[in-house]
Amino acid sequence: MFDTIIIGKGPSGISAAIYLKRSNKNVLVIGKDNGSLYDGVVIDNYYGFPGGITGTELIERGVKQANELGIDVLHDEVIAIDKYEHFTVTTKKGVYEGKTVLLATGKPRTTLKIKGFQKYRGKGISFCVTCDGFFFRKKKLALIGYNEYMLHELKDMEFLTEDIQIFTNGNALTVDVDYPVVHEQITEITGDEDKATTIVTTNGSYDVEGIFIALGSPGAVEFATRIGAIVENTNIVVDDNFMTNIEGLYAAGDTVGGVLQVAKAAADGMHAAIAIKKQLKK
Amino acid sequence: MFDTIIIGKGPSGISAAIYLKRSNKNVLVIGKDNGSLYDGVVIDNYYGFPGGITGTELIERGVKQANELGIDVLHDEVIAIDKYEHFTVTTKKGVYEGKTVLLATGKPRTTLKIKGFQKYRGKGISFCVTCDGFFFRKKKLALIGYNEYMLHELKDMEFLTEDIQIFTNGNALTVDVDYPVVHEQITEITGDEDKATTIVTTNGSYDVEGIFIALGSPGAVEFATRIGAIVENTNIVVDDNFMTNIEGLYAAGDTVGGVLQVAKAAADGMHAAIAIKKQLKK
Repeated sequence: MFDTIIIGKGPSGISAAIYLKRSNKNVLVIGKDNGSLYDGVVIDNYYGFPGGITGTELIERGVKQANELGIDVLHDEVIAIDKYEHFTVTTKKGVYEGKTVLLATGKPRTTLKIKGFQKYRGKGISFCVTCDGFFFRKKKLALIGYNEYMLHELKDMEFLTEDIQIFTNGNALTVDVDYPVVHEQITEITGDEDKATTIVTTNGSYDVEGIFIALGSPGAVEFATRIGAIVENTNIVVDDNFMTNIEGLYAAGDTVGGVLQVAKAAADGMHAAIAIKKQLKK
Repeated sequence: MFDTIIIGKGPSGISAAIYLKRSNKNVLVIGKDNGSLYDGVVIDNYYGFPGGITGTELIERGVKQANELGIDVLHDEVIAIDKYEHFTVTTKKGVYEGKTVLLATGKPRTTLKIKGFQKYRGKGISFCVTCDGFFFRKKKLALIGYNEYMLHELKDMEFLTEDIQIFTNGNALTVDVDYPVVHEQITEITGDEDKATTIVTTNGSYDVEGIFIALGSPGAVEFATRIGAIVENTNIVVDDNFMTNIEGLYAAGDTVGGVLQVAKAAADGMHAAIAIKKQLKK
């Protein structure tokens, strides 16, 4: 059982980890990629780096800094976060338990840029089976995805209906599924005035009664939404202590909005760590 | 005329300078020393520095980073800040005009550790001739100080009274004055119930009707107080935009309170710069 599991190995996550570790807290950092600090990005407005520093180099320095303090930074991908008595974080490779969780995965990207997507978002298109599945029981459902994340959503979906079709949207399927799979690229989502009814692909069209998106990797917003945390305009809503409305679930950095800057992300992580430390004391 | 004059060359001041410069603002940084990031201090919780970094090295990197972006960082000491139509910043070596000023000088230290000082602070002991001088007109006044800062206060004091005595408190006098100078160290300040009346030194005691302190260098709090900005518990009070109650006068970093950490100071500087940029647009 970790005191805190931190999702994200960028400035916010690593800063939080450093502050918690130095307060003798048992922390684990799980990071998948460099997020918006990918290769090629040069940051020249973060204090302390004359001439700037590449995103990759900064991330690597942060991980090294954490490692040197004895913090484990796992290069793994989080598939799901659940809360029972404590938090359970499920990754591709394992399952971890934590008293608290900090979401620091950076700013989520738009998940699907296709015609009709924005129109039917929330009107037959959902991002979370656990959250919205209830309204789609016994229906004919489409699940858009191709990897472990999709598989995780699929398992939840099986409780709702047997009529499931997988749409990879042109991506290579990396997991085994027992349902029909449409490999074509999606070109449009159509429907009547208030509800999506059809997925149009490069090769045909498919009638559906509900569409669930589980493409790529879930971001902080997907985790937060699924667990019941309030999200506004793709920003996770937190209080002055960087805690969401879910006790013990924190978020910091780009994922809570504000200016998307390294200095702000690092300071967020620090502030969140100080607040988490206080909560753990209780 | 500068868009912004930044006092302090630490994480907060330099971060603000970088953000302003990158928005094509004409900024000047004036810094005196490394403040709390002096030699020997190692910071190992600031994101991006595996193994930690010394205070001196971090300050030097920051100044280099600013210089490389074309920002002038003057190694000079600010003696006074005044506001007429614009801000006038007076240093040991020059006078500079700015549309806005950012105070980022770090956390001020206690100014005088002698018996009776705390008791009579505000009761006959003042830190600002311009602020409180009115109540001491035609009185017998003591001015505690030894350098340019003291000289600046002295010039204001001459408008009030001719009965002035300088107390160096054991420091070497570095400026010329036309008033009697007491070189002895001060051991105590005594008085009646609600007012200081006597300065006791290692060599005697001196009756006074008012005592003004201008020792060492003025810090952000002294500048802020003198110009009429609200200070609470040695923290300069700022709004969400890091602006004091004085239009155009900003403060950021340790000087506004909160956790005294590099990450917070750097983020403060960034946020202040964004707010200043908006104000300059008006």
